[in-house]
Amino acid sequence: MATDRPPVDPTRLVALSDGVFAIAITVLVLNVDLPSEPARTAVTETVVIGEWRDVFSYVLSFLVIGNFWVDHRHVFDHVTVHTQRVTWLNMVFLMSVAFLPFPTALLGDDGGVVSVVFYAVSMTVTGALLYVLWWYVSRHDGHLVSGISPDRARLYGLQYLLTPLAFGLSIPAALFVDPALAFVCWGLLFVSLVALKVSLEGSRYGRTDD
Amino acid sequence: MATDRPPVDPTRLVALSDGVFAIAITVLVLNVDLPSEPARTAVTETVVIGEWRDVFSYVLSFLVIGNFWVDHRHVFDHVTVHTQRVTWLNMVFLMSVAFLPFPTALLGDDGGVVSVVFYAVSMTVTGALLYVLWWYVSRHDGHLVSGISPDRARLYGLQYLLTPLAFGLSIPAALFVDPALAFVCWGLLFVSLVALKVSLEGSRYGRTDD
Amino acid sequence: MATDRPPVDPTRLVALSDGVFAIAITVLVLNVDLPSEPARTAVTETVVIGEWRDVFSYVLSFLVIGNFWVDHRHVFDHVTVHTQRVTWLNMVFLMSVAFLPFPTALLGDDGGVVSVVFYAVSMTVTGALLYVLWWYVSRHDGHLVSGISPDRARLYGLQYLLTPLAFGLSIPAALFVDPALAFVCWGLLFVSLVALKVSLEGSRYGRTDD
Amino acid sequence: MATDRPPVDPTRLVALSDGVFAIAITVLVLNVDLPSEPARTAVTETVVIGEWRDVFSYVLSFLVIGNFWVDHRHVFDHVTVHTQRVTWLNMVFLMSVAFLPFPTALLGDDGGVVSVVFYAVSMTVTGALLYVLWWYVSRHDGHLVSGISPDRARLYGLQYLLTPLAFGLSIPAALFVDPALAFVCWGLLFVSLVALKVSLEGSRYGRTDD
Repeated sequence: MATDRPPVDPTRLVALSDGVFAIAITVLVLNVDLPSEPARTAVTETVVIGEWRDVFSYVLSFLVIGNFWVDHRHVFDHVTVHTQRVTWLNMVFLMSVAFLPFPTALLGDDGGVVSVVFYAVSMTVTGALLYVLWWYVSRHDGHLVSGISPDRARLYGLQYLLTPLAFGLSIPAALFVDPALAFVCWGLLFVSLVALKVSLEGSRYGRTDD
Repeated sequence: MATDRPPVDPTRLVALSDGVFAIAITVLVLNVDLPSEPARTAVTETVVIGEWRDVFSYVLSFLVIGNFWVDHRHVFDHVTVHTQRVTWLNMVFLMSVAFLPFPTALLGDDGGVVSVVFYAVSMTVTGALLYVLWWYVSRHDGHLVSGISPDRARLYGLQYLLTPLAFGLSIPAALFVDPALAFVCWGLLFVSLVALKVSLEGSRYGRTDD
Repeated sequence: MATDRPPVDPTRLVALSDGVFAIAITVLVLNVDLPSEPARTAVTETVVIGEWRDVFSYVLSFLVIGNFWVDHRHVFDHVTVHTQRVTWLNMVFLMSVAFLPFPTALLGDDGGVVSVVFYAVSMTVTGALLYVLWWYVSRHDGHLVSGISPDRARLYGLQYLLTPLAFGLSIPAALFVDPALAFVCWGLLFVSLVALKVSLEGSRYGRTDD
Repeated sequence: MATDRPPVDPTRLVALSDGVFAIAITVLVLNVDLPSEPARTAVTETVVIGEWRDVFSYVLSFLVIGNFWVDHRHVFDHVTVHTQRVTWLNMVFLMSVAFLPFPTALLGDDGGVVSVVFYAVSMTVTGALLYVLWWYVSRHDGHLVSGISPDRARLYGLQYLLTPLAFGLSIPAALFVDPALAFVCWGLLFVSLVALKVSLEGSRYGRTDD
């Protein structure tokens, strides 16, 4: 079959992805439970404060998904063309992103070991899928903008691996030590992730050219 | 009435469509039921595993809608201008896409013959509407980018027909044999669909020009 | 205060509007009720068919909102710049569009006179707000692309008035005759609306220039 | 690490933000409660009117979020490039925007002092975060389009402060006087805000150049 046109540019793929990200992070709030009927006559501080777990998992998931979005944008800043395979790898990644409100809701309702592990597994899988996507485009000619050296591509890949690694490590921590330890892991790792990215950028700006 | 401007370009039509697709695939997850109050004190493996049917229909619908999106993008990669008729054909197609979370939810709650057939009918209708859209733009002058031969247009149309055909065939399978057979059909057909598309593209890249 | 830059171009206003339209038409399906627990063991034809009213109001609202979107796109095809006033008129219009899933849900649950009138009022107000938006931009210099004569602008305005007029007329029909009459009105008027638009376009293409 | 490409342009950041805004204002309507089963047989005026509080908080939140969107667009009309820090400041702002449907739902269900204060706090925080974003980009070289004087930047900052100030002031009003006073504050302040913006623009157009 003749190729009568160049491989499609990723504009619509990116638009669809942004849409899925935007919706996934915005429907998270639907998991913050409203007080049920008895509370209807008077919302007290107790009711609002009683939702702290929902609010905590809202904030956590928002930041983690935000982080995936930043990484996803970084990937597609370097992708010039894409093919059916990239489209479908991206689709499976989006399927994983769009699923995240479910483990978030579970975690908000219950801090038991099953919810925590299920949450950590979901995040690990999502992050791993983004890594696979990057791995694929960086290994196949013609997908990346020119000027990215293989070393640089590998470095970026390592950066995308940080999030799934962090969540992956929290799974045994929750299973064999204590679910609360997983929460601590996530918080610490996330803070260090943002710090790392910001400082990398800072150092880049600090240097003149290199 | 004078035509003081060229027929509108499809930018906003595509943006609206991408929005509807993004939302339709993201609200699918809302159908994955959270455990109700009694489970609130402790989410057990049983509860999470008990949702397998919801998760299965989530994955299935995500991939099928993703496939419709890929086909829709393919159609509009070839459409340069569009008219009221194209807008409305597209609107009816989007109406069908946006409806899909409902049969998905039904299927997730219940695997009986009615849910299965209802799901298959919904998918068949949606796919058929996309085919009608393509059929319309390919038969009317001035809608397609130049350089698409009638043969090529017919070939593309056949490709869009694969999904509704597959779901259409599963209707009698579910009605007269067993609902479980429909599930098997969908899985097999979907895998072959993706394989076909990827291999078509592969062969295209393999050839030098043609 | 100095104007250091030209009045903003409507790209983001249009993007926000498309987002609101896309979400409003997609969340409509959430109003189609799932069968409750007893039905969980077996979804029967009765259950699916019993939702006909929900499906009817889904289709109706989808088409009406789709029609508002077509009109909105038509308005902004002619708007080159926009100001705070246009932004806020558009915001109030969007507020009305985003509200439509509520009367749709009411109508789907109950076909009584209150639901029908509430639905008709909501649609009338939304359509009237779009007309006001057009009226504003067409009366104030510098908002429209050049080349639109006042006559043409008035003609477009009349076209946008058709939908609110149709729904407005169905209010007394429902109140003083029968709610069912309103349904008939809407159907007839909508069909004629689409027919009108398509035929206007057809005649435009038929003529050479004019 | 070498900077092999310029700091990313804000197109996708803006697209994600528009998506979050569009969804946040559209899911507000899901908080308008449908009458429950007993009302199913007949929706009466009482039921519709009984939802006035939900409708009021819908309109209020829609306009306030709309106002944040207008301010956000104004900010990014002046931002040419952005960095990780801007991305994350924006992400935290979006997290606050996406959270707003929750206090809106609380306010719609109950007009007690806790709901009112919680709502006012949420709005104050969101507005303050937008101010912080502006403060950051206006203080760091290379983020803003050239031609914005420091005076002008400070003036814009003050404009963005109006909304959080208004909501901030209503907190003691609700706590120490009466929750109803907060409602009055919001209404008055919002009207004056819109009036201010429109009149500022008007005066700008009135002058020839300056």
